[in-house]
Amino acid sequence: MLGRAILPEINELVQKRDFSTLKEVFEEWHPSDLADVVADLPENDRAIVFRLLPREKAADTFEYLEFDVQQALLKALGKEEVTGILNEMSPDDRTAFLEELPGPVVRQLMELLSPEERAVARNLLGYAPDSVGRLMNPEYIAVGDDWSVGQVLDYIRAHAKEIESLDYVFVLDKRGKLIDDIRTTAFLIASLESTVAQLMDESFVYLAASDSKEDAVHVFKQYDRSALPVVDNQGFLLGVVTIDDVLDVVEEIDTQDIHKFGGQEALDYPYIRTPLLDMVKKRAGWLIVLFLGETLTASAMAHFEAEIQRAVVLALFVPLIISSGGNSGSQAATLIIRAMALREITLKDWWMVMKREFLSGVMLGAVLGIIGFARIALWSLFTNLYGPHWVLVATTVGISLLGVVVWGTLSGSMLPFVLRRLGFDPASSSAPFVATLVDVTGLVIYFTAAAVILSGTLLAG
Amino acid sequence: MLGRAILPEINELVQKRDFSTLKEVFEEWHPSDLADVVADLPENDRAIVFRLLPREKAADTFEYLEFDVQQALLKALGKEEVTGILNEMSPDDRTAFLEELPGPVVRQLMELLSPEERAVARNLLGYAPDSVGRLMNPEYIAVGDDWSVGQVLDYIRAHAKEIESLDYVFVLDKRGKLIDDIRTTAFLIASLESTVAQLMDESFVYLAASDSKEDAVHVFKQYDRSALPVVDNQGFLLGVVTIDDVLDVVEEIDTQDIHKFGGQEALDYPYIRTPLLDMVKKRAGWLIVLFLGETLTASAMAHFEAEIQRAVVLALFVPLIISSGGNSGSQAATLIIRAMALREITLKDWWMVMKREFLSGVMLGAVLGIIGFARIALWSLFTNLYGPHWVLVATTVGISLLGVVVWGTLSGSMLPFVLRRLGFDPASSSAPFVATLVDVTGLVIYFTAAAVILSGTLLAG
Repeated sequence: MLGRAILPEINELVQKRDFSTLKEVFEEWHPSDLADVVADLPENDRAIVFRLLPREKAADTFEYLEFDVQQALLKALGKEEVTGILNEMSPDDRTAFLEELPGPVVRQLMELLSPEERAVARNLLGYAPDSVGRLMNPEYIAVGDDWSVGQVLDYIRAHAKEIESLDYVFVLDKRGKLIDDIRTTAFLIASLESTVAQLMDESFVYLAASDSKEDAVHVFKQYDRSALPVVDNQGFLLGVVTIDDVLDVVEEIDTQDIHKFGGQEALDYPYIRTPLLDMVKKRAGWLIVLFLGETLTASAMAHFEAEIQRAVVLALFVPLIISSGGNSGSQAATLIIRAMALREITLKDWWMVMKREFLSGVMLGAVLGIIGFARIALWSLFTNLYGPHWVLVATTVGISLLGVVVWGTLSGSMLPFVLRRLGFDPASSSAPFVATLVDVTGLVIYFTAAAVILSGTLLAG
Repeated sequence: MLGRAILPEINELVQKRDFSTLKEVFEEWHPSDLADVVADLPENDRAIVFRLLPREKAADTFEYLEFDVQQALLKALGKEEVTGILNEMSPDDRTAFLEELPGPVVRQLMELLSPEERAVARNLLGYAPDSVGRLMNPEYIAVGDDWSVGQVLDYIRAHAKEIESLDYVFVLDKRGKLIDDIRTTAFLIASLESTVAQLMDESFVYLAASDSKEDAVHVFKQYDRSALPVVDNQGFLLGVVTIDDVLDVVEEIDTQDIHKFGGQEALDYPYIRTPLLDMVKKRAGWLIVLFLGETLTASAMAHFEAEIQRAVVLALFVPLIISSGGNSGSQAATLIIRAMALREITLKDWWMVMKREFLSGVMLGAVLGIIGFARIALWSLFTNLYGPHWVLVATTVGISLLGVVVWGTLSGSMLPFVLRRLGFDPASSSAPFVATLVDVTGLVIYFTAAAVILSGTLLAG
């Protein structure tokens, strides 16, 4: 935030190559602010600024950069500088960076790591991309249950610098299995002579390395934790996930859901950083699918061409009727998709949801039907737009609206269940997808109602 | 999670009134799991279970309950039990509960608080509903810069129990102004004789009590913090916001955006807990507005009634064309709304976005236009559905698709800017809203193209 405001001044110092002033300015800055400035500088100047930073701060700043800036920077920096940054980065952020790179580049970079760091990095990259393992930081405070509080405090003192979150101390049995977590504050309060075993309550919450990132979000929310231990399937402690990484996961998942709900594939990078052609590709796919689905409306309309020929007035209300179905379906779909994402409802709730949405649909459809009827009636009092049979036309429109809204609401609410049941992401039941589905059936409902109601008059054959 | 699995067993114990076993079972449970069980029990049994919990655990469990369950429980419990819970609750969670209640009830409950807790609660409720003040916990570790590390550690030891997050120690000047924050780990490593001043770097990040909750989210993300200090407008330290509360804010804001994007008012409570009529009301408002907007399509169509009469084939493609505009607009709107929410783009980026979206629209429109043309051409090779002038019809449809998609993309991407500029929430430019806007203009584009292209043939007057 700070960074962007004084970017012109920084830029000037860079142009003047006034490195000593820059060094001085940067000394007090937070790595996050430094990252903002680096990202906003012209690509050629970024490496220059980076070289002014002490090794550790350079690594911290690197962690805050977007992937594309990181990648460009890596190319601009020398081998030694890259080595320094990669070895200093915290293991979870390094995983997040490496997992975006193509295989050969990863192998090259791994060569630059020290043997210990390389083992850590290889290990973390071994977990599935969407699993908790990828978020993990393998540095934590672990103690035995026979340690004294004094020993634990000494141990913390010796290792605190390397650890991301100090809120919890983890207790392991002799073989390395997690048997408890204890808030660090408990050690500050306890007498130095008491043992870890005396502080234990043997109740603890943990994640499995193979859990999905989404699962992790829910456990963090459920227990209001700032950090959680991660174990393998035999209960051995592997690392710690901190809530700042989970916050990023939440943002990412919600962005994906929102993009999907807008009827497109989720973008991988921020809007402004996504190349135009990539973005068009992500959007074109769904747009074409929806378009092909929607061509069915042309077929449906063609089926009713004779009716339209005889009563052109019917055509006038086509957009109104199908859009009402789409809108009510879009409402229902958003509600259900979000409730599923927050795990408020699960597959087994489909029947309860269906009953609720049927009732909602009837009420909403009745409201729109009455307004639609009134609209046509009102116009017909003053104009002859809808002809002598306007009451029948208004009835057709009103009843169709009721039918279409009920149908739209039911389709919109049930589609996420169907998609989830089939193993797809419910968020794919986007507003445009639901609208397309409902359009064809909406036309059928409308023209069928017209055929029944107007058969003796406008559509008398 | 644990709780729900064994609910039947718990229910049985409650029915048998086997309180001693229940007490024993609950002893080891996390308050979050207890809250799950309480919420799932029949309303009459909730209070019974609650009375079995020790005072502090009861308050912790109460904090994890949804508002409607809290409210019902409060009515079922005796005055003394309510007093115990309210006084034991952490101040930030208590604020979140009290702010949902009607004024008279709040005043009644405030009477039950101890004078100190009442002052705290009144103070926190004094902040604007969407401000950081409401998330604040006024308990923290604050020290002077002349304290020794030993003193600080003693102080932490004495007060650790009351404090939610111990990650940071805050340094105040003589008058109470925040002058630095220091990671608690720094004190564990430093020698006991050194002073706080020696550990200070005088660079710190903070929130203002009047900042919006959304601002808080961005600062937490920007600096990867687990807790942040909150100051008043003169820099005096007021309290601390922890990241678990921020996680809830993120979830709430994203839910609101998603609900709005589906074309409705955001629900206040989870889907299943929202009474049916409340939900219908929240949905009806926007649905009616959209419906009234959409009635303009009937007027637009009426304007072109003569053309439809002469060439019914034109009516067949109306749904296809207007929905393509709606879909492309919905894609553009979601991208921009989400990018705005994540602060990737701001008002001043409108021109850059407009250029990008114009180009995207042209490409996407060209693709759909070509497919649309091909579709009609293909059908016309085998059927006579589109008559002898099918090439002209296909040209009309193809060109209209290009125009409508460009227009839809531009409208969808610019509407969020317009809404934000006017002080509205950009998320209100929902998929249905954009579609409705684009439908009327889509019709005009289509029939105008038809009038030009078909004037010598199908529409020859």
